[in-house]
Amino acid sequence: MHGSRSRYLACTFALSTSLGMAQDHAPQSEFVLATQPRQVILIIGDGMDDQQITIARNYLKGASGQLQLDKLTLRSSMQILTTEDQSAGKPVYVADSANTATSMATGLITSRGRISTSAGSDEDLTTIVELAAADGLRTGIVTTASLTDATPAAFAAHVNLRFCENPETMVDISYRGIALGSCSDDLKANGGKGSIAEQLANSSLNVMLGGGAKHFSPNAEGATKSVASMAKDNGFQVVTTTAELEAAAPDKRLLGLFGPSTLPVRLQGENAREAEEPTRSWLNHIHPYLGSVTQPEPMICEPNPAFSTVPDLQQMTEAALSHLSQNNNAGFFLMIESASIDKQSHERKPCGSIGEVQQLEEALTSALAFAETHPHTLILVTADHSQAAQLMPYVSLFDAFPIPTYTPGKLARIITPEGGHMSINYATSNFMMEEHTGAAVPLFSNSEGLGRVPPFIRQPDLFDIIRNYLGL
Amino acid sequence: MHGSRSRYLACTFALSTSLGMAQDHAPQSEFVLATQPRQVILIIGDGMDDQQITIARNYLKGASGQLQLDKLTLRSSMQILTTEDQSAGKPVYVADSANTATSMATGLITSRGRISTSAGSDEDLTTIVELAAADGLRTGIVTTASLTDATPAAFAAHVNLRFCENPETMVDISYRGIALGSCSDDLKANGGKGSIAEQLANSSLNVMLGGGAKHFSPNAEGATKSVASMAKDNGFQVVTTTAELEAAAPDKRLLGLFGPSTLPVRLQGENAREAEEPTRSWLNHIHPYLGSVTQPEPMICEPNPAFSTVPDLQQMTEAALSHLSQNNNAGFFLMIESASIDKQSHERKPCGSIGEVQQLEEALTSALAFAETHPHTLILVTADHSQAAQLMPYVSLFDAFPIPTYTPGKLARIITPEGGHMSINYATSNFMMEEHTGAAVPLFSNSEGLGRVPPFIRQPDLFDIIRNYLGL
Repeated sequence: MHGSRSRYLACTFALSTSLGMAQDHAPQSEFVLATQPRQVILIIGDGMDDQQITIARNYLKGASGQLQLDKLTLRSSMQILTTEDQSAGKPVYVADSANTATSMATGLITSRGRISTSAGSDEDLTTIVELAAADGLRTGIVTTASLTDATPAAFAAHVNLRFCENPETMVDISYRGIALGSCSDDLKANGGKGSIAEQLANSSLNVMLGGGAKHFSPNAEGATKSVASMAKDNGFQVVTTTAELEAAAPDKRLLGLFGPSTLPVRLQGENAREAEEPTRSWLNHIHPYLGSVTQPEPMICEPNPAFSTVPDLQQMTEAALSHLSQNNNAGFFLMIESASIDKQSHERKPCGSIGEVQQLEEALTSALAFAETHPHTLILVTADHSQAAQLMPYVSLFDAFPIPTYTPGKLARIITPEGGHMSINYATSNFMMEEHTGAAVPLFSNSEGLGRVPPFIRQPDLFDIIRNYLGL
Repeated sequence: MHGSRSRYLACTFALSTSLGMAQDHAPQSEFVLATQPRQVILIIGDGMDDQQITIARNYLKGASGQLQLDKLTLRSSMQILTTEDQSAGKPVYVADSANTATSMATGLITSRGRISTSAGSDEDLTTIVELAAADGLRTGIVTTASLTDATPAAFAAHVNLRFCENPETMVDISYRGIALGSCSDDLKANGGKGSIAEQLANSSLNVMLGGGAKHFSPNAEGATKSVASMAKDNGFQVVTTTAELEAAAPDKRLLGLFGPSTLPVRLQGENAREAEEPTRSWLNHIHPYLGSVTQPEPMICEPNPAFSTVPDLQQMTEAALSHLSQNNNAGFFLMIESASIDKQSHERKPCGSIGEVQQLEEALTSALAFAETHPHTLILVTADHSQAAQLMPYVSLFDAFPIPTYTPGKLARIITPEGGHMSINYATSNFMMEEHTGAAVPLFSNSEGLGRVPPFIRQPDLFDIIRNYLGL
C-alpha cells in the first residue's frame, strides 16, 4: 500500500518547524523545481559510526589528518528509529540495515528485517526511487554488497523479510538448517511481488551496480528463464566485468553484477588475521587478577588480493553518475553504499572496515567532483546504524596496577602508517558475529544542505529532505 | 613556560583557513572587542559520546524525542589528540580527562595524566583562564567532581600528574598501596607551584563551585593553615551548602565546596544495581553454544537519595552566571562540567550516567536563558573523550539460532519511561573499572558559533575558537 500525499505534506511541515533558525536560509518552497535539473547523491556507509570513522581517520590520514568527510560543509546527527513488528508497537533501540534503509527510503519507521513494508500490517511503503521515477527523474543504486542486500533493496523492493532475496530463498529461507522466517506472502503465486531480485529486475531503476549475481541466476517464479534474463527483457544491459562496465552503452539501462554475492573488500589484516581473544595463563583462569594475559600480536593492514578482480566503489560511482546524468534534464536520485564497513565489523575485521571507509571516501570524491560541474547536486553521506568496533587504549589507563588487565571479547592491535598503535575491540556478542549498537549516526552534507539539513534529525526525516530537494 | 603570542596567531590563522566557506559569516577580526562584554560558557560532559547521548535521549525524552542539545544551532565533531610523554612523541589514540582538558584549556596536545604541562618537558602551558584574567575578564569553573579533578584543574593549574590534588598527595600518591607516580617536581620546595588545590586557592579565578572539600582541608605546603584558609586570605568567601551559596555576597570571589570529593549523582539503578555479568549454566561453561545464559533482570532507574543534599549543577551554574556577570563590562569565561557521566560509566552504572546528562541539559537550559539577555554569549557543549557504554539490542539479531547468545563484559537492561527496553553493555576491561574509548566526540554551539565553529575540529582548536571570540 502506498502512503498518501497528505501524509508527506504533514511530515514536511513538522520537519520545517523543527528546523528552526537554520530554515531561514532555505528556499521558500522546495516544491518549485528549478529550471536546471536537480540530483541527490545519498552515500551510505553501512555501520559507519563515529568509532569507525575515527579508526579509519587514524589509519588513513593520521590522528591529526582530515578525511574528505571532515571537509564537508555540514555535520549533523541522525537518530535511528525502529519499532516492534506491530502497528503502534513500542520503540526498539537498536536497528538492522533493513529497517534503517526503509526509514531513509520511505520516511516511515518499521521493524527489523523489513524491506519497505510496514510493521505488523506488511503493507508496501512507497520509496523515494519510486516517487522520483514517477516524476520522470532517473534513479540508481550502487553497492559493494549484493544488489539484493537490505540497504539497496529497500530503495526499490517490498518484502516482509530481507532474506527473501531470490526465487529459491522464497521457498526455503534457512541458514545452516535454521529457518529464518517465511517469504510465502511475498510469492507472486500468493499475490506478492516476488523476491527482491525479481522486483529489481522489474523495477524502473536506470542503474544498478554491485554484487549478488547468484540471486539473479535462478529462474524467476513460474518462469523458464532466469531473473537476469527477465532484466534484459525489461531493457537492462547486463555487465559483469570492469571492462564491460566501461564499454556499456550510455543510453541503455545498466545492470552490473560483478560477483556472486558481496564484493571483495580492499584491505585485510596481516596474513588475513582478524581480532582475536587474548591468551590467558592457567592461573588467570583461576582468578582474573592472577597469572598473565597475552594480547594478540600487533599487525599491519595489507591489500586483499581478491579486490583487484572487481570494479571498486569509485569506478561504479563514476559509471552511475555518467549514465544518470547524460542527456538528462530531469535530474536523478542515486544511492551509493559502502556495505562492508558493517560486514567486516560483524566478522571482527578492522582492516576490512578501514578499507571500505576508504572506498566510501573515494566515491565521495567523485560525487564532489560531479557537483562542481552540476551545481544543483545535494550530497548526503551517512550511516544506517552504529556498529560493534570500539577504539581502545593500547596501554590501559590502569597499567600501574600489577594485575593483567585486558578487554572482554576479541581484540585487534593495528600498527598505523604514522607509527602509532590502535587497539580495537569487538565485545557485543559471544556468537560468530557481532551485534549492531544503538548510537545515533553522523550525517554529512555538501553546501547544498545549508538551510535544508538541520543539526539533528530523525532517520525518516532524511526521506523528506531528499523529496523536498527534488521537488517530488 | 608560557606560549608566545606568535604561536597563538599562527594557530588562529591555520584554524581560519580550515574553516573554509563557513568562515564567510564571521566578523572580519575577532581581535576587535565589541563594546558590549563577551562571554564564553563551555559545558563539558565528561565522557559524553554519541552512545551516552543516545542512551540518555531514549530514557529522558523517548526515542523520538529531542534533548536541549539536539536543538542547538550547530553540531560538529571534535577529534581527540594525545601524544606519548615525550617531545615529538607518537600519537596515542585514546585519551584521559587530563590531557583532553589540557587541549581545550591551552590549545596544545599533551600526554595522558598531565594537567596543563607539556609532554616530556613538563613546562607549564598558559590556560584560557589565565589569558582571560590577564585581560581583565572574570573566570569561573563549576563541576560535579572535585574542583581538583582533572577537567576543572587543567583550566587553572599546572602539575605533571592529575593525582597531585592536595598537599598530602604531593608526598604519597598511591591507591590501594600502588604508587601512581611522583609529585615531587611540583612541590613548592622543589621550585614547583604546589598541589592543584593550592594553585586553585592562589588562582585569579572569580568563581569555583563543586566538590573536593577534602583536598582543601590539609595544611598548605610549609604552612600552618589549611588550603581553604589560604583561599580565604586570597579573597574567597567559602560556602559549603545550598543555603550559603544562595546567600553569598555577589561582589566577592566565591569558592563552593559542597562535598568531600565527587558530588552525589542524580539517578541510580533500581536498588542501586549496576551492570552485571550474565549467569551461565554449567553446560555453557563447557561450550558457549551449550546450556543456557540468564541475562540480568530488567530494572528501572530511581532517584539517588544523597543527591538532594547538595546543590545541583543547574543551581551552581546559575550562581556562577550571576556572580560572573554582575556589574561586569569586561566579559567572562566559564567552564561547567558534568563529571559523572564518565565516572558512572567507569563503574558500569548507566542510570547514573543518564542522570548526569540530565544535569548537563539543565545547566545548558540556564546558559541559554542567560544568552537570551546577554547577546554576545558563545555557548559550546562538548565531551572530552568517548566512553565504554554501548547501546545493545535487547533481542539479539541472532535470536533465531537456538544457542545462548549474550554480550561479553557486564550488561544492564533498563526499562524506559516510554515502555521500551534498553540493553547497555560495558566491555572494555576485566578490571574494576571500564576504560575510555577513542571515537571523536560531538561539539554543539549556539547561534554565536555560526561562522566560528566548523563542522570538524581538532580538540586543541577549541581553545583558539574561545580565545578569538573573547578577543584575547
